[in-house]
Amino acid sequence: MNIRIICIGDELLSGDTVNTNLAFIGEELANHGLNVAAETCVPDDMDAIHDAIRQSDGADVLIFIGGLGPTTDDLTRAAVASYLGFQIRVDESLKQHIISYLGERRRNMADAYLDIQSQVIDTAELLPNNNGTAPGQLIRRGNALWALLPGPPREIKPMFINFLLPKILEKCDSIVETLTVRVCALPESIVESKARHAIEGISGLHFAICIKKDCIMIRLSKPADSNPQALDLAKQRLQKEFGHYLLPDECLTTAHYLGILLKDRHLMMATAESCTGGGIAAAMTDTAGSSEWIVGGVVTYANEWKMNVLGVHEETLQRHGAVSEATVHQMLDGLQMRFDVQAGVAVSGIAGPGGGTPEKPVGTVVIGAFAPHWRCVKTFHFSGLRDTVRQRTVNAAINLLITGLLETNH
Amino acid sequence: MNIRIICIGDELLSGDTVNTNLAFIGEELANHGLNVAAETCVPDDMDAIHDAIRQSDGADVLIFIGGLGPTTDDLTRAAVASYLGFQIRVDESLKQHIISYLGERRRNMADAYLDIQSQVIDTAELLPNNNGTAPGQLIRRGNALWALLPGPPREIKPMFINFLLPKILEKCDSIVETLTVRVCALPESIVESKARHAIEGISGLHFAICIKKDCIMIRLSKPADSNPQALDLAKQRLQKEFGHYLLPDECLTTAHYLGILLKDRHLMMATAESCTGGGIAAAMTDTAGSSEWIVGGVVTYANEWKMNVLGVHEETLQRHGAVSEATVHQMLDGLQMRFDVQAGVAVSGIAGPGGGTPEKPVGTVVIGAFAPHWRCVKTFHFSGLRDTVRQRTVNAAINLLITGLLETNH
Repeated sequence: MNIRIICIGDELLSGDTVNTNLAFIGEELANHGLNVAAETCVPDDMDAIHDAIRQSDGADVLIFIGGLGPTTDDLTRAAVASYLGFQIRVDESLKQHIISYLGERRRNMADAYLDIQSQVIDTAELLPNNNGTAPGQLIRRGNALWALLPGPPREIKPMFINFLLPKILEKCDSIVETLTVRVCALPESIVESKARHAIEGISGLHFAICIKKDCIMIRLSKPADSNPQALDLAKQRLQKEFGHYLLPDECLTTAHYLGILLKDRHLMMATAESCTGGGIAAAMTDTAGSSEWIVGGVVTYANEWKMNVLGVHEETLQRHGAVSEATVHQMLDGLQMRFDVQAGVAVSGIAGPGGGTPEKPVGTVVIGAFAPHWRCVKTFHFSGLRDTVRQRTVNAAINLLITGLLETNH
Repeated sequence: MNIRIICIGDELLSGDTVNTNLAFIGEELANHGLNVAAETCVPDDMDAIHDAIRQSDGADVLIFIGGLGPTTDDLTRAAVASYLGFQIRVDESLKQHIISYLGERRRNMADAYLDIQSQVIDTAELLPNNNGTAPGQLIRRGNALWALLPGPPREIKPMFINFLLPKILEKCDSIVETLTVRVCALPESIVESKARHAIEGISGLHFAICIKKDCIMIRLSKPADSNPQALDLAKQRLQKEFGHYLLPDECLTTAHYLGILLKDRHLMMATAESCTGGGIAAAMTDTAGSSEWIVGGVVTYANEWKMNVLGVHEETLQRHGAVSEATVHQMLDGLQMRFDVQAGVAVSGIAGPGGGTPEKPVGTVVIGAFAPHWRCVKTFHFSGLRDTVRQRTVNAAINLLITGLLETNH
């Protein structure tokens, strides 16, 4: 099936907005074994939109993103209608719906804008928008499906998943089934070799591996005509191989998974951060409900704070430096003894670009973690710029505590 | 000038990577008054790349991004060469350069890969890559400029700015001059009306305003044939209007600007965070050199921590709740008295999706800040999902302390 996407908006081409919608839709389709054949991004300009449509005409599914608002630069409805030679009409029931949607939120819209926002292309079916005023519009053109979706991520995401994706899947004669698993706390090379070994001998599976922000993702896909049990079997084997290192589907992030592991064990954690500056605590509180696994944290950026807040000894800092296993051990001691928590992580490192020395170059980070009857402090060497070093430190600290909880069977 | 971009990579269409390169290049060009006419994103597939080239042929500048690595799915060099009917050859001096680049980093590359990575399209000029092994390749085709750039952001960014952008600007007959200013700590509507008022009467300027992640950006552009002093005059007027609320060019973020303001005043700050979970401290330490303005912070997620670490009274929490101005005042007291800092911010709020009540719905956030002889605690109501509420709280807290420093002339 040939699926193409046209993104419309000056802001995407001038760098004012990063196009995250393409990645979102691409990933959702990939999880169902479908590929995007091409994407085109054009400005809010009638001729440019028409050019893009001409180049994508012939696709089985053509998705337009953006340009559905009520202002003069929102041209998608008009461009699609004029390309197809269709009329546009104001839909009175949509208009009433928009008025009540806005009313519930104590907002309103000028009449001229309201009329534009209520425009529907003839023959189009509307897709409900639960987070905004612009509905999606779906046009069937022979066997092809054209969908107009709004640009704001919080509007397009539920609309795509709940309303458009099912209609795309209906069109597939033979669904390519897929299995996606995410593995945490293990490096890519080990995940790849273990996974390939685990599924050896299961025929007809396509294997893909990808480094995500905080874990490694494996995606297996299977053509409809191959062994129907292949994916079930692969799932069993991967579960056996990786066990609790597999992220459960309901966990959005590895930090969320650590939270769930702590909650299951009735443990509360805290953080002591230097180079990450609060990034670990921010990741651990990213998910709703995080008060069930984290009580708090300290960012001890200055050495004075490491001493006064966590009780790191001045002598330790002088002899071993702030970025040392001895210092991180005492940061963990501080969390355990001064703050009385049962689990925690501590990090101290050189995120760069300055501060490196021949013995401790930029990217040197000491990470420690503890849980009841378990503690581990390790030195890591990360490459990359400041942001990357900080992000890798956040991930490694979270993964270290996960490893501790899983390996000690707490 | 017609500038088009072709991004190449399966990972962009499957959602494994968000295409940030388009936004980066789009913004750099916009800052020089140039627009991207269209972008196309295609998979690692020879036919798809050829289709995209055919559709973009005729552009004055055609930029290819990605697919320059040494593996079999890196097809950009071969696709461009075969489209143009050009040969590809292994460039021995490039090969030596790659070997020594890798040697300095104690890495190596298999010979087969090294040969591919040393391939150059005939007539191409090489653009140096200081952060990777794939050089850029520049082809002049009549008056048109075709550039092949590597995909990793840390490689393409310096290459684009240092080597490609100057060559694009050389091609412009009449440079559209632009002026970009960023305003912090003021809402968009006020920035817009003040800015429009400030530049009233200066003819021939195009005005654009855009909400960035942590500030409001105004971009003025001026055609080459209009009043040569228009931008200088506009700059003076905007400086007079917004004064210290303008972010200096050297500040990457509003947090960085706050850091510079603190440093200029010889003040060190600390943070006390609840709903943001460390996000303010993380933002304040995002920039290298941040140890000159922040000593540390506490994340008091649990009420116990608010009491034990910051000294918030149990009675205050019971009577007013954790999300209250009374609680935030006591969090600030804790920073001042227990941690002895001269400036700081404290936040407590309901990021959602749970935890809202009719009196304090999701999005209710109390933000406080202090500096010598100044303190302010305010209640905000933010809309959006959990992430958005947290991000807006981080920005508002940073902006509140900036306002305090500027308005009290510290």
